[in-house]
Amino acid sequence: MLTMQDALSRLTAYWVDQGCLTVQPTNTEVGAGTLNPATFLRVLGPEPWRVVYVEPSVRPDDSRYGENPNRIQTHTQMQVILKPDPGNAQELYLGSLAALGIDVAAHDVRFVEDNWASPALGAWGLGWEVWLDGLEITQFTYFQQAGGVNLDPPSVEITYGMERIIMALQGVRHFKDIEYAPGVSYGEIFGQAEYEMSRYYLDDADVPTNRQLLDQYAAEAQRMVDAGLPVPAHSYVLKSSHAFNVLDSRGAVSTSDRAAEFGRMRRLAGEVAKLWIARREELGHPLGVTPATPAAEVPAAVEGSPGLRQLAFEIGTEEMPPAEARAAREQVRRELTERLAGTRLAHGEITVLATPRRIVAVVDAVADREQDHVRTVRGPKVSAAYDAAGEPTQAVRGFARSQGVELADLGQQDVNGVAHVTVVKHEAGRPAAEVLADVLAKVVGTLRSAKNMRWNDPALSFTRPIRWLLALRGDEVVPFAVSSLASGRETRVHRTAQAPVVTVNSAEIHLDTLRAHGIVADPDERRTEIVAAAQRLAATVGGQIDVEGERALIDQITYLVEQPAPLLGRFDESYLRLPEAVLATVMRKHQRYLPVRGADGGLLPCFVAVANGHIDEDLVRAGNEAVLRARYEDAAFFYRADRDTPLDAMRDRLERLTFTDKLGSMADRAARISTLARTVAADMALGGHDRDTLGRAAELVKFDLAAQLVTEMTSLAGVMARDYAAHAGEPAAVAEAVFESELPRNTGDAVPAHVPGAVLSLADRLDLVAGMAATVGLPTGSSDPFAVRRAVLGLLAVHRTGLVPVSLTESLSAAAAQQPVEVTAQVLADTGEFLTRRLEQVLVEEGHPVDRVRAVLPHADRPALVDQLLHQLDELVKDERFRALVEAIQRARRIVPAGTPAEYDAAALVEPAERRLDEVVRTVEVPGPDLFAFLSAAAKITEPVNTFFDEVYVMAEEPDLRRARLGLLATVRDLGAGILDWDHLRM
Amino acid sequence: MLTMQDALSRLTAYWVDQGCLTVQPTNTEVGAGTLNPATFLRVLGPEPWRVVYVEPSVRPDDSRYGENPNRIQTHTQMQVILKPDPGNAQELYLGSLAALGIDVAAHDVRFVEDNWASPALGAWGLGWEVWLDGLEITQFTYFQQAGGVNLDPPSVEITYGMERIIMALQGVRHFKDIEYAPGVSYGEIFGQAEYEMSRYYLDDADVPTNRQLLDQYAAEAQRMVDAGLPVPAHSYVLKSSHAFNVLDSRGAVSTSDRAAEFGRMRRLAGEVAKLWIARREELGHPLGVTPATPAAEVPAAVEGSPGLRQLAFEIGTEEMPPAEARAAREQVRRELTERLAGTRLAHGEITVLATPRRIVAVVDAVADREQDHVRTVRGPKVSAAYDAAGEPTQAVRGFARSQGVELADLGQQDVNGVAHVTVVKHEAGRPAAEVLADVLAKVVGTLRSAKNMRWNDPALSFTRPIRWLLALRGDEVVPFAVSSLASGRETRVHRTAQAPVVTVNSAEIHLDTLRAHGIVADPDERRTEIVAAAQRLAATVGGQIDVEGERALIDQITYLVEQPAPLLGRFDESYLRLPEAVLATVMRKHQRYLPVRGADGGLLPCFVAVANGHIDEDLVRAGNEAVLRARYEDAAFFYRADRDTPLDAMRDRLERLTFTDKLGSMADRAARISTLARTVAADMALGGHDRDTLGRAAELVKFDLAAQLVTEMTSLAGVMARDYAAHAGEPAAVAEAVFESELPRNTGDAVPAHVPGAVLSLADRLDLVAGMAATVGLPTGSSDPFAVRRAVLGLLAVHRTGLVPVSLTESLSAAAAQQPVEVTAQVLADTGEFLTRRLEQVLVEEGHPVDRVRAVLPHADRPALVDQLLHQLDELVKDERFRALVEAIQRARRIVPAGTPAEYDAAALVEPAERRLDEVVRTVEVPGPDLFAFLSAAAKITEPVNTFFDEVYVMAEEPDLRRARLGLLATVRDLGAGILDWDHLRM
Repeated sequence: MLTMQDALSRLTAYWVDQGCLTVQPTNTEVGAGTLNPATFLRVLGPEPWRVVYVEPSVRPDDSRYGENPNRIQTHTQMQVILKPDPGNAQELYLGSLAALGIDVAAHDVRFVEDNWASPALGAWGLGWEVWLDGLEITQFTYFQQAGGVNLDPPSVEITYGMERIIMALQGVRHFKDIEYAPGVSYGEIFGQAEYEMSRYYLDDADVPTNRQLLDQYAAEAQRMVDAGLPVPAHSYVLKSSHAFNVLDSRGAVSTSDRAAEFGRMRRLAGEVAKLWIARREELGHPLGVTPATPAAEVPAAVEGSPGLRQLAFEIGTEEMPPAEARAAREQVRRELTERLAGTRLAHGEITVLATPRRIVAVVDAVADREQDHVRTVRGPKVSAAYDAAGEPTQAVRGFARSQGVELADLGQQDVNGVAHVTVVKHEAGRPAAEVLADVLAKVVGTLRSAKNMRWNDPALSFTRPIRWLLALRGDEVVPFAVSSLASGRETRVHRTAQAPVVTVNSAEIHLDTLRAHGIVADPDERRTEIVAAAQRLAATVGGQIDVEGERALIDQITYLVEQPAPLLGRFDESYLRLPEAVLATVMRKHQRYLPVRGADGGLLPCFVAVANGHIDEDLVRAGNEAVLRARYEDAAFFYRADRDTPLDAMRDRLERLTFTDKLGSMADRAARISTLARTVAADMALGGHDRDTLGRAAELVKFDLAAQLVTEMTSLAGVMARDYAAHAGEPAAVAEAVFESELPRNTGDAVPAHVPGAVLSLADRLDLVAGMAATVGLPTGSSDPFAVRRAVLGLLAVHRTGLVPVSLTESLSAAAAQQPVEVTAQVLADTGEFLTRRLEQVLVEEGHPVDRVRAVLPHADRPALVDQLLHQLDELVKDERFRALVEAIQRARRIVPAGTPAEYDAAALVEPAERRLDEVVRTVEVPGPDLFAFLSAAAKITEPVNTFFDEVYVMAEEPDLRRARLGLLATVRDLGAGILDWDHLRM
Repeated sequence: MLTMQDALSRLTAYWVDQGCLTVQPTNTEVGAGTLNPATFLRVLGPEPWRVVYVEPSVRPDDSRYGENPNRIQTHTQMQVILKPDPGNAQELYLGSLAALGIDVAAHDVRFVEDNWASPALGAWGLGWEVWLDGLEITQFTYFQQAGGVNLDPPSVEITYGMERIIMALQGVRHFKDIEYAPGVSYGEIFGQAEYEMSRYYLDDADVPTNRQLLDQYAAEAQRMVDAGLPVPAHSYVLKSSHAFNVLDSRGAVSTSDRAAEFGRMRRLAGEVAKLWIARREELGHPLGVTPATPAAEVPAAVEGSPGLRQLAFEIGTEEMPPAEARAAREQVRRELTERLAGTRLAHGEITVLATPRRIVAVVDAVADREQDHVRTVRGPKVSAAYDAAGEPTQAVRGFARSQGVELADLGQQDVNGVAHVTVVKHEAGRPAAEVLADVLAKVVGTLRSAKNMRWNDPALSFTRPIRWLLALRGDEVVPFAVSSLASGRETRVHRTAQAPVVTVNSAEIHLDTLRAHGIVADPDERRTEIVAAAQRLAATVGGQIDVEGERALIDQITYLVEQPAPLLGRFDESYLRLPEAVLATVMRKHQRYLPVRGADGGLLPCFVAVANGHIDEDLVRAGNEAVLRARYEDAAFFYRADRDTPLDAMRDRLERLTFTDKLGSMADRAARISTLARTVAADMALGGHDRDTLGRAAELVKFDLAAQLVTEMTSLAGVMARDYAAHAGEPAAVAEAVFESELPRNTGDAVPAHVPGAVLSLADRLDLVAGMAATVGLPTGSSDPFAVRRAVLGLLAVHRTGLVPVSLTESLSAAAAQQPVEVTAQVLADTGEFLTRRLEQVLVEEGHPVDRVRAVLPHADRPALVDQLLHQLDELVKDERFRALVEAIQRARRIVPAGTPAEYDAAALVEPAERRLDEVVRTVEVPGPDLFAFLSAAAKITEPVNTFFDEVYVMAEEPDLRRARLGLLATVRDLGAGILDWDHLRM
């Protein structure tokens, strides 16, 4: 049995063998190994650094009195920093697992997207969680920024969660049962401290004292910054951070505290970082300066394969996030297509595929050379080219010289009837290798993702490091280099393969070569395989996968593996007592497992996990099952704890949760939603049962955000509220309303089905939109960190249910009035416009003709009404009476000049047709915005209008008469003015 | 090259192999590994515990900006706790050195007394510094108490000073040059932090902030104690301790602060300890309970060797402190002698020897049995034994029964002429083995030292653990057991010997056997060998050892080794520029090296170190030389720094040094000495140059206690003052006075030779004595922690120089009046008496006859006068005139009843002889206390007195006459009353 202390010592020894030095943990409480100066300070500046150390990491918020099997206030991190990035850190990491005795080839080890950021430290990086059979055992990050300073070179940070790893390796279910040393359990050594420090952090720490400590530490940090001493300053930043965490775990951090504190820490961390960099520079960088990775040499040019051959092009990367892999695939397809189009190289179909680790392009039938090209260059007019004596002028001499030809080589050609001197040039096509080298280098060099990082390459920047380039046309390498990478014929297969680097003989067999090594490059193929195998596995237990329902998850899984290896796992039936949402969320979001459902759609105690590559299936299954068990155990622990917490107590905890810096706590937000909901209800004159339900639900709204289970799985907000409210004895309608207040959670999600929930949901979203519009602004481009777009879509959808027939403009004003910040009239107007534009877009995307959508948009204030009018329009466009009425009105609109008032002196009218129209118009009683009612009321004007136009000449010579006629028609024009924007309606 | 990180990892691995578990360093700053809860808490209570860990130990006071090659504010301790004591911890420790690649057989590894105590933690233990070739590399302690709680079982604590060890192993001279990891130096990794944290601790830490932190931490610790949570409470005790250390290094701790803070910490640490013990008990001692070491079985009895055989008895211990070894030798000698005397076992001479590791007793010619014994028991008188009929009475029957004999066995015997009934008993002597077993067991069981400790033995207690018992009479073991130890025939030789356990065949060859293994049991022999070899070595460089001057050191060395292996080492001549006192003190006190002097008595750049046992001499020499070099480098560093410090600045630092809790800082004390010296000078009417010198010297007195070099080597106080004062340009007389103010430093040391120094010295000692008498009391028994006795002897010696002819009583009163505490009249009187008794003792020890000493003691107030009178007495006792005068006076004293007043009515005198005496007496002018003057003045009364007695009958019938005669004689009696106490004088 590998004890925990052995594991620490083996990992240390392994990394020391890789050239790391070892230091000791920080001598003040830190939340993570990253805060140790051996990381935070050493990643700054140009000096190389390799270190491994243990860091007992103290997180007061994770205090659980030692009762939770998986959660402890002090857990043991093993921290590795490799600076600069050695280029093979993932491989080195796998070696460290092997050093722990883990058979990495038999297990399913995966690198799953996880980006890390610590705003309080001005630090971030991109990387992964490393999964061992579904268990997150390590955080692996390419550290990009610390203290607000760009890291050059970036560092690789590897953080092992030791308790997790050891629990998995020892197969124990509670951290206390870990065999720490031979015959001594973790609980025996650390159990009492775990309990007592939990007591301190959760119950007994003196709040005023810790508040003072926080301020004193920060002040001392500032003093040390002022004294130019980054090391003690850093130490005090750490102390202040811990004091803050203690206050937080004691529930003593107000929103403004938190915002101020994060700001202060970020500023101090930034100053510490700058000071450190300056000091190391003063000291002349005692550890030396990291040399830049040299530029790669361009491979030697070769004689290209003759004839039409395939092009195989592979950009090899470390594991890309699924969305980024998909985007990169599209980007390469577009770039390649466009850039090839910019050449004269003949080629066939372009196919681009992608896996997490590569983007593969295959271009059929690529010619061996560009086509040749003849081009005529026009010079001066012949008349200006030769003087009277027929001698060449300066102009023509200059032209010849500039074109590099002799005068004798010049020809002549007529252009628009004028003779010009010309040169005809024959340009030979370049060899394919040359053309392709140029194109492919540009494709690689311009490859970018939504969030890019740096690694040991001096110039490239992408979502994750690019590690290799394969480029073959036919049998030959397309020779090029981009920064530190050169093209070649080598690809990489699974890291744990016997030979992880494979040579590809020709472009034509590239995909087959990959396939032979288990790699399915085509995402569609992978998806198909996954679905088929998953269904097959589900069927073995009488179940099935809801392929449609799990589409997004399956898409994601497709990009998490190169060689799908689905396997069926089980969990204890007893967990089925947990809410289905909890079970499914854990499977989907945390584990990327496919839930297996029975014939009735209910969950079976099974799941399909999709591993990558050849694995020992029993081993990996057991691992995944253990992870899910631990997750469910954790969830069950939270679920019990939450259910034991009175709703009011839970709601009171919202005080501790920040909404945003400027918009207060989540409790403030809940209070605003509650008030707004009541206002809306009053506007609607809501009464009876619904009013009572709303009243209570408004008191509770958002309370479950303070639930432990929701803290863990925010997507369960609402679902747990309903469960806990019902469990606490609230009326079913109230429980449903707090659930519905969170609907819709995303596009396509259900909307509230009852008035109280709908009112709350609307109020929720109006509050968010108003607050955000006033503070961070309305979303533009792709950036929308607070999901304002989703909130807007949600509130439109809710209104469109018709359950809350109020004016959005008025409600938004009411929401704005409640914000703790000023919401200007301009912001309100812009927000209204934003809502209108979103509604327009939604309706158009739903397939409504643009003209009709625009015609009804004046009612965007009431989307439900817009819906109704659109539906009426859809009906009425088939109704001849309506079409005739519209045509009649439009005739009037067309002839009446803009600005003509809808008033006239009826006495001035003389013709019978106009007098008739006048009479009929007078009898029309214009209804509210209802097209059917409008048709009923106004249909009678169609015939008089048409007769009027047949018989009356509007533009009479006599001014009074003309004015009266135009006034009459303007009145007709305005009959439907409040109903549609007739300008846009085309019929 | 063994890097530092390798060393840490090897030691960890070694101790893990010994069953230790590893934990991480404390996550708050601590001054030593002892403070880590893995030591401080785990040594409490009965649970077993074995642990090894690294502890970066932060000592703000050791901050030197990274400039001092050997002193750093954060040094790396490697801490091992073995609980319970495994019984062979020293051997295990040597194994750990071997694990570092140290050839312990080739090196000189020694265990040199060093007792550890942390009053602030209520913790102490006994043990050693471990020396490797003279370098202290480890602290090895049997931990006896923590938090004021006795530790049961005691723990073994081993603390490695890693930087030291590595510097020695790597042969580097500055900590920054340590190779920490391959190719990376310690300085490169920690140098900047060392500088910056030094800046913080020495210059930049905000004092008010740290003062607040201290209070907040302590308050939080108290709260956690009140909450019953020892773990967080302990953490806050540590934090408060660090905050205190920061304040201290910033020079911001006042005396009262320090006293209060130590008290608070001690109390908190005590409460934490009690809570922890209680909590572990509540938890049912999760790690189990240490079983007591079982009692040893008594070896089987054997047939003893017949005839007269030697007894060999050896008590084997771990290294005893030299003084304790000497005392134990004496104790064993006395006990053995007395206890054997209590038996009837015939034996010859008893010899007891000792080394650091054993007390060896050899008893010659021990008989094989006790002598048989005949004993007569007396019963009732015969007259009472038989009644008139000759029948035995109840009395005689009872006697017979009580003696277990028949009536027929009774005999008769006359006692003082009265016939008694008797029983004659023949008692057979017991076998020698039985007798000796009893005696030896008692000798071992009662063995005690001045300060005793516990180890894994359930009953024994001694200065250090007793590990084996050898007891042989002739060829056979004397079979006995004491607690967990049984006697046997095995002894232990050097730990690094091939076979460290050796069997001794017979008592007669015991010492030879030891000798054969290099062990010289006889201290006198060892001493002789050391001196001879040292002189021989010194001669090789034209030098010699001052054997007389180094007597105490040689005595000590004799008890530091079992097999002296002297070797000659050298140091760089450049260090000879340091003051000789510094050089010699370092050699003697720190290293136990013998200084080598040239023909002129000056130091040569050489020393003799005395190693133990077989060693690789070159290796050990090189090690010792390196240690001395480092020490001298350190001293030179301090010397330079001190010389760069203005005297006033140095003196101001005395504020930071506590004298005692109640008596203020050293600055307070210096101020009192200064004032008192001026008072004394005024009493003496000191004028001119001496007054000026004293004035300036009084301003400076004690200033060098704040010097770095004196802080390191307190015995240099005064010596460095003179050096620094002279260097700073003070007049030579002032420099000499501040030097002399510290004289005499111990018995036999020089006394001041000039008035200013003498005045200061006297004032210094009076201040100490007055303050101590009032606070801790005058010394009684052996306890005298503040060396009050030495101060008293010093002040007597100073006064006896005659340079300060003042009244000690008056000066003491003046000193008392200045104390910050009340010094009562009773205390003053007791102190005066104490001084008198010391003076009496000194004089008697100097060889003065007791009667004369007592005769002059009335002048104890002025010891110089006492001296003078004694010398006069010595002269005058040979002077017939004086003897006659004394005789005459004594005759008068003898006849005059006590209380008779020295007055008479001369008119009442009638006889010529008495009238003559009256006349002569009237003309005597009694001088001051000067016997020569007295003789001159009073000699003329001798003859009249003698005539008076010849001719006059004193006790006349007539009362007036008798009264007058007695009054006349009383006047004679009182002639010398103020000069001597004539009662005591015998001639």
